[in-house]
Amino acid sequence: MKRFIVVGHKATTSGDFKLDDMAGGAGRLDILLRCINSALFLSHGIRRDTEIYLILQGEPDPPRTIRINGAEVRYLNPDERSTGALVRNALLKKLDGEEMRSSPGIYISRRSFVQVLDDLAPISRLVYLKEDGQDLRQHPLDGDLTFIISDHQDLQEEEEAELLARSPLTVTLGPLSYHADHCITITLNELDRRG
Amino acid sequence: MKRFIVVGHKATTSGDFKLDDMAGGAGRLDILLRCINSALFLSHGIRRDTEIYLILQGEPDPPRTIRINGAEVRYLNPDERSTGALVRNALLKKLDGEEMRSSPGIYISRRSFVQVLDDLAPISRLVYLKEDGQDLRQHPLDGDLTFIISDHQDLQEEEEAELLARSPLTVTLGPLSYHADHCITITLNELDRRG
Repeated sequence: MKRFIVVGHKATTSGDFKLDDMAGGAGRLDILLRCINSALFLSHGIRRDTEIYLILQGEPDPPRTIRINGAEVRYLNPDERSTGALVRNALLKKLDGEEMRSSPGIYISRRSFVQVLDDLAPISRLVYLKEDGQDLRQHPLDGDLTFIISDHQDLQEEEEAELLARSPLTVTLGPLSYHADHCITITLNELDRRG
Repeated sequence: MKRFIVVGHKATTSGDFKLDDMAGGAGRLDILLRCINSALFLSHGIRRDTEIYLILQGEPDPPRTIRINGAEVRYLNPDERSTGALVRNALLKKLDGEEMRSSPGIYISRRSFVQVLDDLAPISRLVYLKEDGQDLRQHPLDGDLTFIISDHQDLQEEEEAELLARSPLTVTLGPLSYHADHCITITLNELDRRG
């Protein structure tokens, strides 16, 4: 399994946002929507061996974690607007303690970044995508992998400390710094090449 | 210079479309908007050495070519909706024979795919991104490069014949088939690594 965790530091935790204003009033939710596209779309289908976790940390009721599983997801289209509508539906769910299904393959919970790390660390190798890491292409990688990426802001100091305490690989994608969704595309291409 | 030509076979040639319906009524314009993002955005800036040509071939008045130059462009944001608004502004221009500027760095003309190839072939190496090409990573590439990509449909037979008549390199990005915008991201990462 290939997994991506993307932290949205200001991304709204309410379904009360306008699909016309996802880059503004929804706390740069647009970034996370493009990450969904990059993680799950191939030219003629969905990556069924891939899963993405969006950690929403914006107002009014953080945190929320939206999990989208490629093997199960339905009604997903590549454009930002329709993907935003699916995420909004998830955010409109009344949550009790458990993760809830919003639509096929799309789940929402109150899990925090640290809780998601704790859930995945026992079953998956954590890989931190960061400018000063080792070159992804030079790094042997196999098995269940979870790549951690931040949105347009770096991970906060405490978030990075929590991640580093779990001994991730730290890997970089090239000499320049890329948007989160572009990082996902480049990472998956490298994994595709390894078969 | 790095250039990308993306052919939008059904993409609207009228500015009379709704920003809420770019994946539907505007002929999958959403694909081309994501290509603009991939071609021009770095994490903290714009790729000033990159240019993208969108060849719009949909109704009601094809063709239109929108050219966006990274060194000049302004008011460009990464999200689909605001980029769609800039493209719509360009399509609302009344065109005479010449290419016209719509906003800083964004130009529109009546050029066809073949005319754009003819304009670029004398100054740039044409590179056709296609599933059955040689591996990009194994291929020496330098100087001014123009990558040609199709939208969700393959190039039509006549289009491919016109391109092949100009002796492009034919290059592939990996074992799977990717969306056009993902192809651009992967290609630029490879070029970034070569410096």
